[in-house]
Amino acid sequence: MTASVFDDPWLCGLFGDGEIAAIWSHERRRSHMLAFEAAWARALGACGLADAGTAERAAAAILAAHVDDGDIRAGTAVDGVPVLALVRALKAVAGETAVHTGSTSQDVIDTALALTLKETSALIAARISTLSDALAGLESRFGGNRLMGRTRMQVATEITAADRIAAWREPLADHAERLAALRPRVERVQVGGAAGDRKALGDKAQAVTDHVALSLGLHPTARSWQARRDGIAEYAGFLSLVSGTLGKIGQDIALMAQQGIGEIALSGGGGSSAMPHKQNPVLAELLVTLARFNAVQVSGMHQAMVHEQERSGAAWSLEWMILPQMAAATARSLSAGLAVTAGVERMGTV
Amino acid sequence: MTASVFDDPWLCGLFGDGEIAAIWSHERRRSHMLAFEAAWARALGACGLADAGTAERAAAAILAAHVDDGDIRAGTAVDGVPVLALVRALKAVAGETAVHTGSTSQDVIDTALALTLKETSALIAARISTLSDALAGLESRFGGNRLMGRTRMQVATEITAADRIAAWREPLADHAERLAALRPRVERVQVGGAAGDRKALGDKAQAVTDHVALSLGLHPTARSWQARRDGIAEYAGFLSLVSGTLGKIGQDIALMAQQGIGEIALSGGGGSSAMPHKQNPVLAELLVTLARFNAVQVSGMHQAMVHEQERSGAAWSLEWMILPQMAAATARSLSAGLAVTAGVERMGTV
Amino acid sequence: MTASVFDDPWLCGLFGDGEIAAIWSHERRRSHMLAFEAAWARALGACGLADAGTAERAAAAILAAHVDDGDIRAGTAVDGVPVLALVRALKAVAGETAVHTGSTSQDVIDTALALTLKETSALIAARISTLSDALAGLESRFGGNRLMGRTRMQVATEITAADRIAAWREPLADHAERLAALRPRVERVQVGGAAGDRKALGDKAQAVTDHVALSLGLHPTARSWQARRDGIAEYAGFLSLVSGTLGKIGQDIALMAQQGIGEIALSGGGGSSAMPHKQNPVLAELLVTLARFNAVQVSGMHQAMVHEQERSGAAWSLEWMILPQMAAATARSLSAGLAVTAGVERMGTV
Amino acid sequence: MTASVFDDPWLCGLFGDGEIAAIWSHERRRSHMLAFEAAWARALGACGLADAGTAERAAAAILAAHVDDGDIRAGTAVDGVPVLALVRALKAVAGETAVHTGSTSQDVIDTALALTLKETSALIAARISTLSDALAGLESRFGGNRLMGRTRMQVATEITAADRIAAWREPLADHAERLAALRPRVERVQVGGAAGDRKALGDKAQAVTDHVALSLGLHPTARSWQARRDGIAEYAGFLSLVSGTLGKIGQDIALMAQQGIGEIALSGGGGSSAMPHKQNPVLAELLVTLARFNAVQVSGMHQAMVHEQERSGAAWSLEWMILPQMAAATARSLSAGLAVTAGVERMGTV
Repeated sequence: MTASVFDDPWLCGLFGDGEIAAIWSHERRRSHMLAFEAAWARALGACGLADAGTAERAAAAILAAHVDDGDIRAGTAVDGVPVLALVRALKAVAGETAVHTGSTSQDVIDTALALTLKETSALIAARISTLSDALAGLESRFGGNRLMGRTRMQVATEITAADRIAAWREPLADHAERLAALRPRVERVQVGGAAGDRKALGDKAQAVTDHVALSLGLHPTARSWQARRDGIAEYAGFLSLVSGTLGKIGQDIALMAQQGIGEIALSGGGGSSAMPHKQNPVLAELLVTLARFNAVQVSGMHQAMVHEQERSGAAWSLEWMILPQMAAATARSLSAGLAVTAGVERMGTV
Repeated sequence: MTASVFDDPWLCGLFGDGEIAAIWSHERRRSHMLAFEAAWARALGACGLADAGTAERAAAAILAAHVDDGDIRAGTAVDGVPVLALVRALKAVAGETAVHTGSTSQDVIDTALALTLKETSALIAARISTLSDALAGLESRFGGNRLMGRTRMQVATEITAADRIAAWREPLADHAERLAALRPRVERVQVGGAAGDRKALGDKAQAVTDHVALSLGLHPTARSWQARRDGIAEYAGFLSLVSGTLGKIGQDIALMAQQGIGEIALSGGGGSSAMPHKQNPVLAELLVTLARFNAVQVSGMHQAMVHEQERSGAAWSLEWMILPQMAAATARSLSAGLAVTAGVERMGTV
Repeated sequence: MTASVFDDPWLCGLFGDGEIAAIWSHERRRSHMLAFEAAWARALGACGLADAGTAERAAAAILAAHVDDGDIRAGTAVDGVPVLALVRALKAVAGETAVHTGSTSQDVIDTALALTLKETSALIAARISTLSDALAGLESRFGGNRLMGRTRMQVATEITAADRIAAWREPLADHAERLAALRPRVERVQVGGAAGDRKALGDKAQAVTDHVALSLGLHPTARSWQARRDGIAEYAGFLSLVSGTLGKIGQDIALMAQQGIGEIALSGGGGSSAMPHKQNPVLAELLVTLARFNAVQVSGMHQAMVHEQERSGAAWSLEWMILPQMAAATARSLSAGLAVTAGVERMGTV
Repeated sequence: MTASVFDDPWLCGLFGDGEIAAIWSHERRRSHMLAFEAAWARALGACGLADAGTAERAAAAILAAHVDDGDIRAGTAVDGVPVLALVRALKAVAGETAVHTGSTSQDVIDTALALTLKETSALIAARISTLSDALAGLESRFGGNRLMGRTRMQVATEITAADRIAAWREPLADHAERLAALRPRVERVQVGGAAGDRKALGDKAQAVTDHVALSLGLHPTARSWQARRDGIAEYAGFLSLVSGTLGKIGQDIALMAQQGIGEIALSGGGGSSAMPHKQNPVLAELLVTLARFNAVQVSGMHQAMVHEQERSGAAWSLEWMILPQMAAATARSLSAGLAVTAGVERMGTV
């Protein structure tokens, strides 16, 4: 099946984005999960919860492990999470002693998610900056041009292209600030153990946590965050704020590109199977689509905050269904926004 | 990238469903699109808009065509739809004359969607019926057992298992009725041409439409439905009604399965990487997840009804992002519901 | 507080609609609830569960009762529903014997809702019909005019005004059909008693139910529907389908009304505090707003289908927060759609 | 009509909250709007755009003005905003010269909104702090008690009450931090004039803006924010994060309060009209309802970011329909959370 436009062999030409796809790929996530398990083994060794040499050998074996996807898939069907089958596979090659002891499925999956979000944030931050520069360039080129200001889709008074571009660009600076404030709230290691209290680690809980965090480049945590999902939901909201800003840009451009309005000229643009002469503002429309898509999805991430007790299978899985696509939509929104901006050949009139 | 749990190599073990995946696969959709183009060519021939022999040869060539996915993907990146590149490829093997003439991208994609929905509806109708029977079986086995009725999650008065099962099962009969009423509103051919008025077909418009519809097993239409999306949005709502009913079943089962309540015993059930003894009601939780997922998505399908003018690239693409996953979620919901029901070893007390 | 634009002393000028406001008013709902309690008392009398004379006197007293809103409000704060305090008040004037015996809060509230939906449906059905006629009139006046067909907001090929109006009007016929099919699924009496099984009514359960249904003009039911909310969620979806159709009309009109496009001339229209000359297509925009509002809300009604056990306080209350506003939005959408249509002075060009 | 549970004469007993209702009341908003117009008049005087004495007299007259709600309502019906009719009324008592000159509807409404959000934030910040303290108190009283940790609603390993309370309380500290960071992004004056460029104010634009901001206790702005809604959408997201945290608390409490689980004892609690002995965890359920409500609504606020050109009537009005209710839901969520916490008589077992 290809349930997602991001993966569809044809539609990914429009919706897909190589960099975000790599970050959220199956392979990369598996790699993060193995990195967690290896860091965990080493932390057990470093903190005296496993023999140091055994732990180091286990870590090395984990990182070198070849995991059979079919086995994991079958395990996921039974367990609802891939981690049990994964741990079985890892123990087969890395021994029982130092593998996963004192950890739990959610530690693996949520910490891997934190690593994914770290990479996602770096990509998005860079693209926000690039897009902001591109819009500054647009302003340099066309900012002084006259543009008819429109309110309620009706002619208001004349403004400049710079005025409209400012409303596109200014939120980006705030988005960068939001992201910087938000990153420490999600780029943090998840360690909870069976019921979130790290009990199995005894008085070494904090030391193990710190060790794993340091090893993975994440912030340490004083407690598990498995049952509080505010950071993740906030992140989803951030993604949708960004795509929302781009959606406004896209809507404005599609409106300006109408014949009869003609306030913008775009290079490229899509054709029509019935009308070969047509130039459709495909990417501008895509920005609107992605904004509305994320505006829908953000609701589900907030629903998932009602996360019962120490772990909600139902609410947690809902995040899995939604967050990857929001990240993909936002990243694509930024790359499409950049492409649209680059394709502006005229905006307003001299 | 694997943006979707339905396609993820590991998570599809939980979320995936082979039959719905086949129906919504890339290959099947491509096959529907080729079937449309072949039927179109034959209709042109039958209605005198192309030479009959040429049309038949074109149709045969279309059905036998090997399409390069990379070409189509690249075309989609430019055009926002895969159809232009597809038509180019088809014309290369089937000639210019009888291929796609008088049609447009949306005719191809929406008619292919109608075919997909027809197959989806058949699957869902069959599963609703099977699940209803399985719930009847559950009632036969355990219906007379005592169960504590609970309102607001608190003990109310004693009921029977049959009482609760009735609230699970009765909606299914209504869902079957809803689906039967809805199918003619979506299983209909889309023919509009460049701007939805079938003008390029002249006085043969209805004849071509009828011919294509008959050939594909769809209802004919007196007008294009490209800009009115009520049927599609209604279908999405139906999908979510079904998964919502299953979500209630799943929530009830997860609550009954709590230790301390113990009103249901389930076979199978998922393990925990930290607690090997655990039996998690994974599929019951999955039902809740899928219900909440679809309840989120249905919003996007209703947003997409604000479909400007004769074709909205923005609103139409939003449907592509959402509807396939709703179908997948609903079909999986039904199969998981059936598995949960089959695994009930006890419900209530004698 | 005025949390709602429908009630706001200023904004209700735009969003409000007298007829739907009356149907969903506090007073009307209270009247429905008293009607239920009176019908219940009479049914108890008719079925031998209360002395017939006592029951009749109780019913008369119930219908004449003056209820103190402050008492009910205070009771709702404690109980989560207004019915306990209401029943106390009714028993004070109508005696203990024949009042509410064997019933429960949800019977009162959901049956009152069924009565409200019956009135709502009648209003909406009438308005759909009126609007359909108005659009037919629009077609008569301007249908032959030339209009530039637009796809992806770009010029496609010339169509007629009739072509676009058809895409506005055709869904209305289907909406009428949908509503007719749906009404029996919601206009039905809710009788469940404490835990939904009608047990307290013994072998008179069906007779009491039928009597109440007949008395109130609702369909009788063989079981309570308190824990299955598919009918209510489906109704919400229907409301949003209607406002979605109107949203498309509004969006098209706002786009046509742009200077530079000028494909429609509207009488009336809103002014600007900064630009007195402006004519804003306020009602066309309102149609878009209401469509998007309902498209958001429908999600919540589907979430509320995950209704645990015999009564979910949480899910049920969510319906109370959402459904009234969806009804108000849809009814206003239809009245605004009618006003917009009536204000069209020109559409397309001769 | 009473479309909203927050205003409903009966249901506001459960959903209503006096403090937030006052902040969002019609009277308070009108007062903010008059405050803006008065500050504007004075700013015109101070910056030499109006005679200083005239401006001061106008400001005084504005603040003392009695506005006829019926007039404003009628004006809103025509204009889509209440400001035109309001300005007419103000000019009638305060003269033409110094009233509203160079301003526009959106300046009035959005600045009044900024004032409302400022008051809302103060209330919410205080309540977050109070609730955090109350949860700390709960931890002091019961934190050492044993509680069965549950994952996927199944028994995991024993934890302490303190462990679960930590997952409830820790997000509150982050919410306080989020709010502090967010406030400057919404508590800012909106000044744009007809098309958002402040052109009518000439070289006095910044001075007027600064003067108004200072006078109203808001942050000055270098540009209008009328067409960029990221701050408002972010605020809505914040509100939903808070209610989401409370929803998790409510869900946990409702689950703990189940007979058979019995991990919490609550004072108060709602009754049942059918079962007088029942103690329903009404407020715990309410927390879940409000969380899911806001999780739905946040979607609409993100949809409203697609705000076309210099002012979108459609997208802007959508905010009016949603944001007030989100604020009401969040404030009520906090007060209900506090009440629930105060009513905990036991949590876990010694």
